[in-house]
Amino acid sequence: MRALRFHGKKDIRLEQVEEPQVRPGWVKVKPAFVGICGTDLHEYLDGNNLIPKPGHPHSITKETSPVTLGHEFSGVVEEVGQGIIDLEVGQRVCVQPTIYCGKCHACQSDLHNSCPQYGFIGLSGWGGGLAEYIVVPRQAVWELPSNVSLEYGALVEPLAVGFHAVDIAPIAHPIKSSTSMLVLGGGPIGLSVIQAIHGQAASSESPPVIIVSEPTAARQQFAREFGAHHVINPLTTDLVTKIMELTDDRGVDVVFDAAGVQVGLDGAVRSLCAGGTVVNIAVWPKRATLDMNEITFRQRSYMGSATYSNRDFGRVLEAIESGKIKPGAMITSMIALEEIEDKGFRALIEEKDTQVKILVDMGRSLRKDSAVAV
Amino acid sequence: MRALRFHGKKDIRLEQVEEPQVRPGWVKVKPAFVGICGTDLHEYLDGNNLIPKPGHPHSITKETSPVTLGHEFSGVVEEVGQGIIDLEVGQRVCVQPTIYCGKCHACQSDLHNSCPQYGFIGLSGWGGGLAEYIVVPRQAVWELPSNVSLEYGALVEPLAVGFHAVDIAPIAHPIKSSTSMLVLGGGPIGLSVIQAIHGQAASSESPPVIIVSEPTAARQQFAREFGAHHVINPLTTDLVTKIMELTDDRGVDVVFDAAGVQVGLDGAVRSLCAGGTVVNIAVWPKRATLDMNEITFRQRSYMGSATYSNRDFGRVLEAIESGKIKPGAMITSMIALEEIEDKGFRALIEEKDTQVKILVDMGRSLRKDSAVAV
Repeated sequence: MRALRFHGKKDIRLEQVEEPQVRPGWVKVKPAFVGICGTDLHEYLDGNNLIPKPGHPHSITKETSPVTLGHEFSGVVEEVGQGIIDLEVGQRVCVQPTIYCGKCHACQSDLHNSCPQYGFIGLSGWGGGLAEYIVVPRQAVWELPSNVSLEYGALVEPLAVGFHAVDIAPIAHPIKSSTSMLVLGGGPIGLSVIQAIHGQAASSESPPVIIVSEPTAARQQFAREFGAHHVINPLTTDLVTKIMELTDDRGVDVVFDAAGVQVGLDGAVRSLCAGGTVVNIAVWPKRATLDMNEITFRQRSYMGSATYSNRDFGRVLEAIESGKIKPGAMITSMIALEEIEDKGFRALIEEKDTQVKILVDMGRSLRKDSAVAV
Repeated sequence: MRALRFHGKKDIRLEQVEEPQVRPGWVKVKPAFVGICGTDLHEYLDGNNLIPKPGHPHSITKETSPVTLGHEFSGVVEEVGQGIIDLEVGQRVCVQPTIYCGKCHACQSDLHNSCPQYGFIGLSGWGGGLAEYIVVPRQAVWELPSNVSLEYGALVEPLAVGFHAVDIAPIAHPIKSSTSMLVLGGGPIGLSVIQAIHGQAASSESPPVIIVSEPTAARQQFAREFGAHHVINPLTTDLVTKIMELTDDRGVDVVFDAAGVQVGLDGAVRSLCAGGTVVNIAVWPKRATLDMNEITFRQRSYMGSATYSNRDFGRVLEAIESGKIKPGAMITSMIALEEIEDKGFRALIEEKDTQVKILVDMGRSLRKDSAVAV
């Protein structure tokens, strides 16, 4: 079968690989739509990062590059392994790509996302969504509700990142209208957070206050579309002054940092109310400095949110099913597999501000392929 | 009356001031024992720090230096103001020295310790414990249980700092024996934290695991006396390796940072289990750097604990009354008011490691005084 594999920095190849065979307890899925993630882009530009280098296999998959890419995807069940009684061929699903040991202290505490052996289908081995078929463990498979499209199914993974951050934020859930939140960054993760806040709001009529700090006009517009009530350009407006003005001098309850920039963090801490928390989702390129006394004297916190728990895919699917969130506008481009370098990675670099989520339509690419014959 | 007043750096004077008069809703107390705090020492060595400088009065007290020192103290009620029906002359009390506006968002959220106008009796004005008399608001006065001595009453304030940090730490309360905690630093605050853990333990027979990191032998010994189960010298032992060894490779649930040192913080973060928290109590002399990815990828947190809430004095008094904690060994020296520079501040500098809490016995100093006549 065909698969898009990562061999190394700027070396991805659409090539023939052996078709994976289903085994007891596992499920064979035919990918339908696959999102391209910032992590994929970073592997493409600077890899290997998360993808295990030759000689250093992932401790669970035992694989190294070349690996098949694609960890945000939906598909259709092609075959179910022995022992699986709750899934049928033809069912529409999405795949939670997390790999973890299940035995360590973190896994035993329901913190699989903090497992020291943590990895991802589509990065660490076990195949990926950018292939004709993939075989994954049963527990990775989430059935799509009847009114959730396969296109939306490919958005569940990035949305789960936002849902998780909002879920673990130390505020009352469901989130009251009196709660105020600042989101740093209007990229794909920032937009996921905005939707997650609406998805976890106590009332859709009077949602909590959502403020977004984002310098580019295109992303500011996306933030508004997904439900930000106030959008601040931190390059032209003093963030802390504006936040205090918007919150009657109180500060926000939570800041979600989806930017990972020092100046943003400094403003974030000072934008918090007494007892407030910065929830970090960003990957930081280097160490950050923190004014510990700004944290301590007003009893603030800084915490990390790591991908998602084993409950978040279900939460996202419920929110889409019920209409609480409508993530369609996240899909800014739909491409064929053969177009991934030019219309995928290059577009994510050159049209960074106007692209949110580029989906690979696996049906389109495979149809093309059948015409040219591989 | 006589009062020990701070005029400026290394300029403290025992001098005559006007005796304060009781007023409606306030209480006149005759101080009995007064502890010297690290904050007092820093004011003496480098002040004004917290103490308002001339020209910059505290926003609530409207006072500047000279101010009377002493914010850790017990005493006896001398006179009660109009309207007070629940206190009597002669009652033994301790004083919660906090000053706050009561009206701001923080105060309204029960976070008086984060009030932007926060201050302390004994630093910010309204007199201090190192005087013959002081008049304080009714709500600052805590009655001592019959089996709690006036000496112990002077320890309630520093103990409340530890009790508060342990109380707000994100672990199940009362604290189970399966919880493990690391305390950085075996000075007065570190020892308060150790006692607070015992004071908030679910069972005195099987307390949570308490590990202390402290380089000096004298403080290591204090830590053991107050109930540390393991004491690590971070200069000779690799902290993270040792912690993982002691916790079966899991890491500790909480680190209490009572040291405020960069290298300690770095080890602290990596000593945490997945989902664990560093609770900072230390005052940091400058910004610190933090490996945000170490925080985020294992879903750890960093939070500040600011002095104490309006419940912590009560918690400490209950713990002493019930015998859950026995803080007597914290008192390493008892001096007269006239001796404060030589046997107080100088001793805290030169005998730093062997001194925990030096108390000024106001009775002793006043008796002396009556002999020499002022």
